[in-house]
Amino acid sequence: MASATIYPVIWHDNKVKLIDQTRLPQRYNVVEISRCEDMAQAIRTMIVRGAPAIGIAAAYGMYLGAREIKTSDRHKLLQELDRIAQMLRETRPTAVNLFWAISRMLKTAYETLGTVEEIKATLLKTAQTIQQEDLETCQAIGDHGLSVLPKTSEKVNILTHCNAGSLATAGYGTALGVIRSAHRENRLQKVYADETRPRLQGAKLTAWECVQENIPVTVITDSMAAHCMQQNKIDLVVVGADRIAANGDTANKIGTYSLAIVAQAHNVPFYVAAPFSTIDFELSSGQQIPIEERDTAEIYHLGNTNFQLQGAEFYNPAFDVTPANLIAGIITEKGVIKPENLLDYHTNLRIKE
Amino acid sequence: MASATIYPVIWHDNKVKLIDQTRLPQRYNVVEISRCEDMAQAIRTMIVRGAPAIGIAAAYGMYLGAREIKTSDRHKLLQELDRIAQMLRETRPTAVNLFWAISRMLKTAYETLGTVEEIKATLLKTAQTIQQEDLETCQAIGDHGLSVLPKTSEKVNILTHCNAGSLATAGYGTALGVIRSAHRENRLQKVYADETRPRLQGAKLTAWECVQENIPVTVITDSMAAHCMQQNKIDLVVVGADRIAANGDTANKIGTYSLAIVAQAHNVPFYVAAPFSTIDFELSSGQQIPIEERDTAEIYHLGNTNFQLQGAEFYNPAFDVTPANLIAGIITEKGVIKPENLLDYHTNLRIKE
Repeated sequence: MASATIYPVIWHDNKVKLIDQTRLPQRYNVVEISRCEDMAQAIRTMIVRGAPAIGIAAAYGMYLGAREIKTSDRHKLLQELDRIAQMLRETRPTAVNLFWAISRMLKTAYETLGTVEEIKATLLKTAQTIQQEDLETCQAIGDHGLSVLPKTSEKVNILTHCNAGSLATAGYGTALGVIRSAHRENRLQKVYADETRPRLQGAKLTAWECVQENIPVTVITDSMAAHCMQQNKIDLVVVGADRIAANGDTANKIGTYSLAIVAQAHNVPFYVAAPFSTIDFELSSGQQIPIEERDTAEIYHLGNTNFQLQGAEFYNPAFDVTPANLIAGIITEKGVIKPENLLDYHTNLRIKE
Repeated sequence: MASATIYPVIWHDNKVKLIDQTRLPQRYNVVEISRCEDMAQAIRTMIVRGAPAIGIAAAYGMYLGAREIKTSDRHKLLQELDRIAQMLRETRPTAVNLFWAISRMLKTAYETLGTVEEIKATLLKTAQTIQQEDLETCQAIGDHGLSVLPKTSEKVNILTHCNAGSLATAGYGTALGVIRSAHRENRLQKVYADETRPRLQGAKLTAWECVQENIPVTVITDSMAAHCMQQNKIDLVVVGADRIAANGDTANKIGTYSLAIVAQAHNVPFYVAAPFSTIDFELSSGQQIPIEERDTAEIYHLGNTNFQLQGAEFYNPAFDVTPANLIAGIITEKGVIKPENLLDYHTNLRIKE
């Protein structure tokens, strides 16, 4: 099993260290976070981003918040933790991993008997466990992904959108995890990375990750994907996910839906790679997933250039929903599941548990 | 008939004045061109761009070149003009209007009897005629376009890609000509302008044009078009064209093909608006259209920000080809023609002529 080499979130010296993902690839900067409120701000401003990574960051945020509470009263601690959980939940609305990680932390606190100090210690341990589990999950996703590679003797070209890599997870990545595993097995020709406007996570983060590990990468603008498929340059599309509804509809970075449509038009298989915890079984379809709208300056403010125009509007939805019928399979740590089988799979799991 | 208010190419005081389209919308700068070679450079660097506009610019370029030739020998003049024509042809490979305008200028020179000075005078007059004809053509395209608007009492939302407006033509525009006519007839709700990476002609030029004439415009990133269609925000797509093959396959700004696929997936009618001269009847299909690849710095160099990455490749095809079967109709100055009828239409025209 290949090991990850890039860790966006590190617990060290009683602080959280985050790679500042707003500065890459020009600058590799590490930000130290000791306070819960700073973690909320880091999530909001996308210093840390990517569905699994913000879950991990929020879990540590819960611990940092707990650490700040000066009380020996268990009830008071839990009350304060509820408030902190709410504050962290409000940082980003779309990715379910955030809510999942916060709930798990809260549940741990409520279920831990003992002193306030013991609860705090358990919270830190739980955040570390969430992080470790995510790393293992990503490695399992990557390896399950090998089964969806075209069964040819040729190496394959995989297109991905945004960054679902080490930077978006504990390490290794989901979509980029599949790509890493393909590269390790000598099955990968090249990665095509959509630049992913407006924030350019593909050009800035995915390309950077690939270069760190000598994975051949070609950056294209988002609208070039169809042209590349028409030229038979793409064998497979693999993307991450921010939230998957029970019917398989998948919310992911804006542009994913467009990519899924053009992939289908070219008979290029389109896969979603995500931890099983990304599936929100409380939502029957993707229409119920809240779509974050972000500041429109993300579109018109590029580096030092500002092409805002008095009188023109800008619209900036950060995610879109790809209907399940465009998705060939969801690559999870439990295996590759067809979207239409998610609910059955879930029911069977619960019966076994 | 609405009049144009923005003219990207103006003949004045024995010089050509070009709006510098690389500076908009931040700066409105006019560049004066007196030499043929400067015109070639202006076309290459996209100070003037848009298929019909570069045809007009090249026509004036031919005259400027002729003016520089110091000879009274007709044969020598024509020889030199051939050389100049070749130099201008090499500026941009995809748009056919460039070749069409240069050929027309050359033909005029060869067919004009009389002195060198008389030939030169005729060349200037022909360039002016090409420009005037294009303005009238665009106004006719705009008005023919009214017939493709959905037959509802509601105002319509039209999505366009890149800039096929006044700035891309003598004035009024092709795709934006249709939009201008719809606005004049009080049928337009709003324009959605794809920003059009990598050069952002939609965000920078189309939005600017709309704002000049109080046409409501919302800029989106290219990959948001599918999401907007999913939300029923788009009634119609109209784009320009750089070259149309005899079978209706259409080369236009990169991203057009992607847009045509997503429009079809949502049953949103997809139209191409272009002068009849954009149709290259010498090419039987779009596969024969040469696709310009431009400097990859257009992708990674944004304003003062450079996210080039040692070890990562960038790929920058400037155009793509939309197959005829995705195109509902081609809106020309002669009327709206279905792609599959182009050849018959052409044959009938030639019989009549």
